[in-house]
Amino acid sequence: MEYCAPEREANFLLFELFRVQDIWPNIAGFDEFTQDLVEAIIGEAARLSAEVLTPTNQIGDQEGCTWDKGDVTTPAAFKGAFAELTAGGWLGLAGNPEYGGQGMPKMLACLVEEMFWSSNTSLCLYGTLTVGASLCIDKHGTQDQKQTYLPHMYDGSWTGAMALTEAHAGTDLGIMRAKADPNADGSYRISGTKIFITSGEHDLTENIVHLVLAKLPDAPQGTKGISLFIVPKRLVNEEGSLGERNAVASGSIEHKMGIRGSATSVMNYDGATGFLLGEANGGLAAMFTMMNYARLSVGLQGLGAGELAYQQSASYARERLQGRSASGAKSPDLPADSLLVHPDVRRMLLTQRAYSEAGRAFALFVGLQLDLAKYSDDAGAQQLAELLTPIAKAYLSDKGFEGAVMAQQVFGGHGYIAEWGVEQIVRDARIAQIYEGTNGVQAYDLVARKVVRDGGVCIRGLVDHMSQTQVLEGHRADLNDAFDRLVRATGSVVERANQDPELPGAVSNDYLELAGLTIYAWLWAHMAAIAPQNDFGRAKRETANFFFKRLLPKSLGLAESIFADSSAVMGLPPELF
Amino acid sequence: MEYCAPEREANFLLFELFRVQDIWPNIAGFDEFTQDLVEAIIGEAARLSAEVLTPTNQIGDQEGCTWDKGDVTTPAAFKGAFAELTAGGWLGLAGNPEYGGQGMPKMLACLVEEMFWSSNTSLCLYGTLTVGASLCIDKHGTQDQKQTYLPHMYDGSWTGAMALTEAHAGTDLGIMRAKADPNADGSYRISGTKIFITSGEHDLTENIVHLVLAKLPDAPQGTKGISLFIVPKRLVNEEGSLGERNAVASGSIEHKMGIRGSATSVMNYDGATGFLLGEANGGLAAMFTMMNYARLSVGLQGLGAGELAYQQSASYARERLQGRSASGAKSPDLPADSLLVHPDVRRMLLTQRAYSEAGRAFALFVGLQLDLAKYSDDAGAQQLAELLTPIAKAYLSDKGFEGAVMAQQVFGGHGYIAEWGVEQIVRDARIAQIYEGTNGVQAYDLVARKVVRDGGVCIRGLVDHMSQTQVLEGHRADLNDAFDRLVRATGSVVERANQDPELPGAVSNDYLELAGLTIYAWLWAHMAAIAPQNDFGRAKRETANFFFKRLLPKSLGLAESIFADSSAVMGLPPELF
Repeated sequence: MEYCAPEREANFLLFELFRVQDIWPNIAGFDEFTQDLVEAIIGEAARLSAEVLTPTNQIGDQEGCTWDKGDVTTPAAFKGAFAELTAGGWLGLAGNPEYGGQGMPKMLACLVEEMFWSSNTSLCLYGTLTVGASLCIDKHGTQDQKQTYLPHMYDGSWTGAMALTEAHAGTDLGIMRAKADPNADGSYRISGTKIFITSGEHDLTENIVHLVLAKLPDAPQGTKGISLFIVPKRLVNEEGSLGERNAVASGSIEHKMGIRGSATSVMNYDGATGFLLGEANGGLAAMFTMMNYARLSVGLQGLGAGELAYQQSASYARERLQGRSASGAKSPDLPADSLLVHPDVRRMLLTQRAYSEAGRAFALFVGLQLDLAKYSDDAGAQQLAELLTPIAKAYLSDKGFEGAVMAQQVFGGHGYIAEWGVEQIVRDARIAQIYEGTNGVQAYDLVARKVVRDGGVCIRGLVDHMSQTQVLEGHRADLNDAFDRLVRATGSVVERANQDPELPGAVSNDYLELAGLTIYAWLWAHMAAIAPQNDFGRAKRETANFFFKRLLPKSLGLAESIFADSSAVMGLPPELF
Repeated sequence: MEYCAPEREANFLLFELFRVQDIWPNIAGFDEFTQDLVEAIIGEAARLSAEVLTPTNQIGDQEGCTWDKGDVTTPAAFKGAFAELTAGGWLGLAGNPEYGGQGMPKMLACLVEEMFWSSNTSLCLYGTLTVGASLCIDKHGTQDQKQTYLPHMYDGSWTGAMALTEAHAGTDLGIMRAKADPNADGSYRISGTKIFITSGEHDLTENIVHLVLAKLPDAPQGTKGISLFIVPKRLVNEEGSLGERNAVASGSIEHKMGIRGSATSVMNYDGATGFLLGEANGGLAAMFTMMNYARLSVGLQGLGAGELAYQQSASYARERLQGRSASGAKSPDLPADSLLVHPDVRRMLLTQRAYSEAGRAFALFVGLQLDLAKYSDDAGAQQLAELLTPIAKAYLSDKGFEGAVMAQQVFGGHGYIAEWGVEQIVRDARIAQIYEGTNGVQAYDLVARKVVRDGGVCIRGLVDHMSQTQVLEGHRADLNDAFDRLVRATGSVVERANQDPELPGAVSNDYLELAGLTIYAWLWAHMAAIAPQNDFGRAKRETANFFFKRLLPKSLGLAESIFADSSAVMGLPPELF
């Protein structure tokens, strides 16, 4: 399987659509990211993706991970690839420069992350969890903790793992049982069993830094009684060298539908030594400070899967000869025309492409808000990032999975055969809709916490912002209708939610999709307006036209469905399910 | 994993909705199928499904099939289960009674098939291909051929295989290369390589009857030059005993995303002895006489997957405690409420259920037309069956897959873990959208051949029929709007297709979905009207309400999208994909 990173797209989005050359010079630390440097970074990430990560993707899936008495062996080919990934400093991309990170804009990091996800999702996960854990330590750790862990995590010699879920406590973390008992020296003894721990145990690095949620003795009930602890697999001596093995062990690894090169452990903490990270009983809040980043990352995983799938299916459709065009043979000298003459194959390819390209623009728009919030203390940007994060996580991962399924369909029977690689994309992409908060949880977060709570102010502000952007005139009327539908749906949801506590959950899935579709419509109308007058721009305008004619109409049904009462879902008594 | 066959549903559909007790007595051979007998048959199929087929489903997936020098070994547990399946005569269910078949109504066979698909898709395939091949022999074979093969196929001592696809010729069979050279004794030497041959080689039976498409010397170009041949793995002696091994061999088996207990072979025919079935150069037509049945069966596979997935996820949602109801704790004595208090979980369950129950009713409606066409020579029913078949194949399999994905989502992280079994349903269900003509091919068949060709007469006739049915008054207005949308979309497609040969392919996917959704709306309104005044009926009415409020609105967007020109998909030049 081949993968070609979307470098031209990256350039278009950064320098033509969002014009970061006008934004970054005003942000301290970002002024060094000139177009030349950015293109060099993107180019190197593209090379690494195509030449190092992609070739290990399929063999990693086939080989999978193995468990033996607590030791976990990753696919053989992952060792060298991971070493190249970390040697390039890619795990410290957006990390704190004080501790060896590169302090790169999130917008740029988004583009690089997408490429890595596309080229090898399983391998990428060992790095992503490290980035997530290091963000958390950077935000909440003491100076000593940062100095101890961050340099090793940025350079990839140690990886990170996040231990939240227990067998009976997934979405509902408040009912977790893991406990933390204080030691005399200020450390804690952590005991409990966590499940679904991505990279909880593996053989790629000499140490693994677990961030574990657990309850202190006499902690309050529920989510307000959860604390966060740093629990390294190997303890770190005072001078920074690796010390003895901690009581942290993998009890088994899961056999999963996909991401089989990524080791998912049941982790046992048997009185393991841990160190409080942030405030006592403030663990969930501490976890959540990195959630916006982690959730955007999982969205990018979906985007990366969709892009890879699009590339595979477009290339298959170009080369596969089957049937004749309904308007007369297009390649009369060949035994058949290419699949590209068939309108329904084009529909599947254009659908993938329309979601993939708008999705990338959307992810960068969210990345921009995160950058503005973090480096310019822009409260509006922070609020917008919080509004958009659940949409990015869920909508990008949903469309990535649907795109992968569509690519598989373009392949016909070959799409079902392991050898061709597309079915792996489907299996790998599926998890992004589930972990890091299921997409149902994202939708509820969006509607209940980000829309209803502020009476729809923030999302109406977004619509105002979108309304003021330059767009292709031919799409203006349809776009305004879409804005209007979203605003009406928002008003209706906010109003009814006051009387009906079930309403946000009842409409959340459809509302999130309506919001995503509307934002994508805006981005397509905007991209079509500013795209250059060449083949690249022509493809943008044709895809925009397809989006408005064939995909945006879905918003009609979504809006209608949102106007339904919660009784439509709550009416059936539980015992009749 | 447990599976409980929908016996009450079967009873409701046969005797309350479609009232077969008023229809079957008028069809020769069907009068023996009294309600008592039907319930006994359904009951026995339900028992076999739950007790014999289901327990071998997951282990069959895990063990898979193996290939060794042309020999294919199926999962160990399949041997006994297949023997029980065949001993009960289930492969001859709808077979010709003259040769040992049971001549059962297709409506009844549909219900049984669905149960078998639900309980073990891979194992079921060994039987389904046998049923398909025996249908073809029954319809096109000489008396001698029928006598030689059918009794063994009905009793399951021999299975069937259909060899159509070649590596370069999938949907486009006209460009196939397999050839058939006449022998002096009237038989043929068949040579060529076929791929994706389900049950082409296995160890469940002593013989395998291959139906192979190949070209006679000097056959016309394209699909009009294809003939069909019976090529048994072991030749049959004159007195009916098994003779020598034919030159038929499995070259390898595929590693697939799912249906891993089903062996899919590359088959090599090296001058194998074959016997012409039906007319020379009439092979494709002969194949297609069984297509309506085979395609409905694949639709039933999707339905079966959806039903199994619904059962798993509903049961998980009942038992899994996580979070609290937004309207106050429902199980205050437990650490958390069940998933059923969450509106979005209910949305996923009700969506699955609404498609599953309407899908079953729809499948039986198609089965009824096939019965009327076959046994009453009802030309209208034949035409209706031909119109509905592509919808049944594609829509049932699409909704089955989507339902399985939704069930997986209800399971959260557990849905991604092999041990829980739901991810297998997703993997198994996926193939139904691809084989037996991809769903894109079905959609094109529907629009180009079944709707545009007769100017929309048949589908408007169906709408008339549906309009005259008793429906729940509360749904009447929405239903009439849906009919109106379908009729307007049909008129628009028929009219524009005259000028634009790309139009049918451009809108086919959305048109098929609109047709499916409209038919389901009719069935829900009808079922809600006649369902009894008890819990069973209440569930029907609540699900109907959910369907009308939350699922039918999708038809708004589909209709709008169908009104788009073909330029929306044809505009992008091939080189820009």
